[in-house]
Amino acid sequence: MHLGPYHSSCLNLAERLRIPYNVSRMSTVQTSSSPPGTFEILATDGEARLGRLQTAHGAIETPVFMPVGTQATVKTLEPRDLEELGASVILGNTYHLLVRPGPEIIGACGGLHRFMGWEHPILTDSGGFQVFSLTKLRKMTEDGVAFNSHVDGRRLFLGPVESMAMQRVLGSDIAMCFDECPPYPCEAKYAQEAVARTLRWARVCREQPRAEGQLVFGIDQGGEFAELRAECARELAAMDFDGYAVGGVSVGEPEPVLIQEMADGVRFLPREKPRYVMGLGDLWQICEGVERGVDMFDCVMPTRHARNGTAFTRDGAYPVKAGECKADTAPVERGCTCYACTHFPRAYIRHLLNVGEILGVRLLTIHNIHCYLAFMREMREAIVAGRFHEWKAEQHRRLRGPTGQFAAATFQDGR
Amino acid sequence: MHLGPYHSSCLNLAERLRIPYNVSRMSTVQTSSSPPGTFEILATDGEARLGRLQTAHGAIETPVFMPVGTQATVKTLEPRDLEELGASVILGNTYHLLVRPGPEIIGACGGLHRFMGWEHPILTDSGGFQVFSLTKLRKMTEDGVAFNSHVDGRRLFLGPVESMAMQRVLGSDIAMCFDECPPYPCEAKYAQEAVARTLRWARVCREQPRAEGQLVFGIDQGGEFAELRAECARELAAMDFDGYAVGGVSVGEPEPVLIQEMADGVRFLPREKPRYVMGLGDLWQICEGVERGVDMFDCVMPTRHARNGTAFTRDGAYPVKAGECKADTAPVERGCTCYACTHFPRAYIRHLLNVGEILGVRLLTIHNIHCYLAFMREMREAIVAGRFHEWKAEQHRRLRGPTGQFAAATFQDGR
Repeated sequence: MHLGPYHSSCLNLAERLRIPYNVSRMSTVQTSSSPPGTFEILATDGEARLGRLQTAHGAIETPVFMPVGTQATVKTLEPRDLEELGASVILGNTYHLLVRPGPEIIGACGGLHRFMGWEHPILTDSGGFQVFSLTKLRKMTEDGVAFNSHVDGRRLFLGPVESMAMQRVLGSDIAMCFDECPPYPCEAKYAQEAVARTLRWARVCREQPRAEGQLVFGIDQGGEFAELRAECARELAAMDFDGYAVGGVSVGEPEPVLIQEMADGVRFLPREKPRYVMGLGDLWQICEGVERGVDMFDCVMPTRHARNGTAFTRDGAYPVKAGECKADTAPVERGCTCYACTHFPRAYIRHLLNVGEILGVRLLTIHNIHCYLAFMREMREAIVAGRFHEWKAEQHRRLRGPTGQFAAATFQDGR
Repeated sequence: MHLGPYHSSCLNLAERLRIPYNVSRMSTVQTSSSPPGTFEILATDGEARLGRLQTAHGAIETPVFMPVGTQATVKTLEPRDLEELGASVILGNTYHLLVRPGPEIIGACGGLHRFMGWEHPILTDSGGFQVFSLTKLRKMTEDGVAFNSHVDGRRLFLGPVESMAMQRVLGSDIAMCFDECPPYPCEAKYAQEAVARTLRWARVCREQPRAEGQLVFGIDQGGEFAELRAECARELAAMDFDGYAVGGVSVGEPEPVLIQEMADGVRFLPREKPRYVMGLGDLWQICEGVERGVDMFDCVMPTRHARNGTAFTRDGAYPVKAGECKADTAPVERGCTCYACTHFPRAYIRHLLNVGEILGVRLLTIHNIHCYLAFMREMREAIVAGRFHEWKAEQHRRLRGPTGQFAAATFQDGR
């Protein structure tokens, strides 16, 4: 097959990514006593640990949940809302931002922080997950993936070089390596090839120019194959990244498999560096991750489910649109201190959702994000106090009933 | 024709409106030195006047623009946003709230203020306008109008008794009389009948039970017929309402006709009471109204047009989605002090609108409402300073160019 079109797309994108954006307009990099990438472990309780990761835009206390801002906005929320909710770091999506508005516009505005008015840390994923899950007519080469944009069908190319160049334009505090995320289930042979490619691409990503103070994390793949996970983790560790992620989980596998994959991935990743499990957002599962030494999580669940009317609470989720809520003057969650719960009856939020008012989705998003971030704050306190395991057992009971066990079916969710 | 079904609907609604809602849960009524309804004229400049209207939930400084909260929310905004923007009073829609969520639910939540978390004044329209403009299969009787709900086709009945009962459940600070709003154009005979009916209904509304401290305003009709407007105004004045509105304007007539109708309506309304022109929201036209002694305005323009991407500025409106904005790092309006303009480049808001992100509509709504309320604040200062006419001439030039004259076509907008 003639590779001309991909190469010309690639060149075109490389060209677009070299745009001379105004460096003086880049968002201010915060000064700190410790340089970006410094990761201090402040307390441990078993494998669970309380940490602090320095970035160019401030410190992140871990374990942390990162709300997802796919298209340069955590849906319905402003930066001041996220600050009020106590978000210390948010996620941006390289793939989505490459498609719209593109690097020229974000570059012209001085990077993603300035563009979206968020002065605190941003982690950007590499686009690998979206390229493999959202696009059509993919053609993989050693240099990356040619694909059609999911918006307008435009032919684009993304590989380790382009992804890192785009993340440099975005100016994120933490850039992720461009990886291959295989689906579930997946043959061992394919998983092995994906690991090999992910490792080759990780070496390329490692050598690309970065934004000032930008950290780069490697991503462990290997599907459900423990040896592949271990091998991938060891190879990545040898490349000395600023942090490490477990990728390719929560892609449709049963929950016990997911937990096992996470455990297999984390086990061989350096203890002294931050460890991140990508796309994991069930509170029960987050506890399982932290118990195994995971520090960072992200998921669209609290924002996406707000849009279909689901409230997350410390005692599980429920549909606010349900008829029982229609004249209920209680808040969405009793005892919750978020703006939505302290100002409005459940009946009001149900009414807004029912008549299609945007404010309903916004108020429920505020509540859901608050629920997640308050959960993580409490968890960090439990680790400091050396009572993480009791706390976790209690949360598991509250979230899933008396047994506190695996969910009947995995809560699947895209990114 | 057999009237049974309407009467049974009517009874059913009357039944629904008698629900024993919990008075102790009603929103707190503010104490003030002056009782609700007190209207002080603090300064005048020609016919333009600066006033203060006391209501059960606080004072309203006039001339005032009231953002519209059709379905118990000023679309996309929270009460704290409206407070930050300086809104002193908002509008609620009796018709929409009757259809969804209905009086039972709002009653159970302690009235509209509690339901939507807004502690400041609320004016509710009577539903007359919506019944005559939104519904199908209308059947008018001397007692009101039977109609099919625009949402689910359910047969409902609204007349002066039902409208006032619903506004009592809502607990608004200012209730409007149930009137008949004829379309434009309209025959003199029909306009005359509508005026007669509006006056008969006004007398019925006048005698209905009210919420504590609730004011009631009469509505002047008469279409483009000056004598009818004058007669209607004189008859209403004799009924001694707490305030008066000019209705049936901005329903499709050319701008010079609209201005004339407003002038004809206002001229014979009591000077010592607040005067309100319903549904008028063009800044140029608002100036014309204030120059003729109008105190209150409302319109969906700033919120509705935000949803299609139009920014209102002191120098006219423009589409933020336009290609020229795509990499523009300027704010939506230079010099504007709203949250959107002080935190985000125009390119960001365009991007959000372009990719369908709710935050884009919200930020533009914040800007547009700020633009309107800042305009009214400046206008009130100009009246106090005795330079309203110079200020108005300058605004007219900025809004409509060198001549500052009538718009080529009326900016039509529903409610």
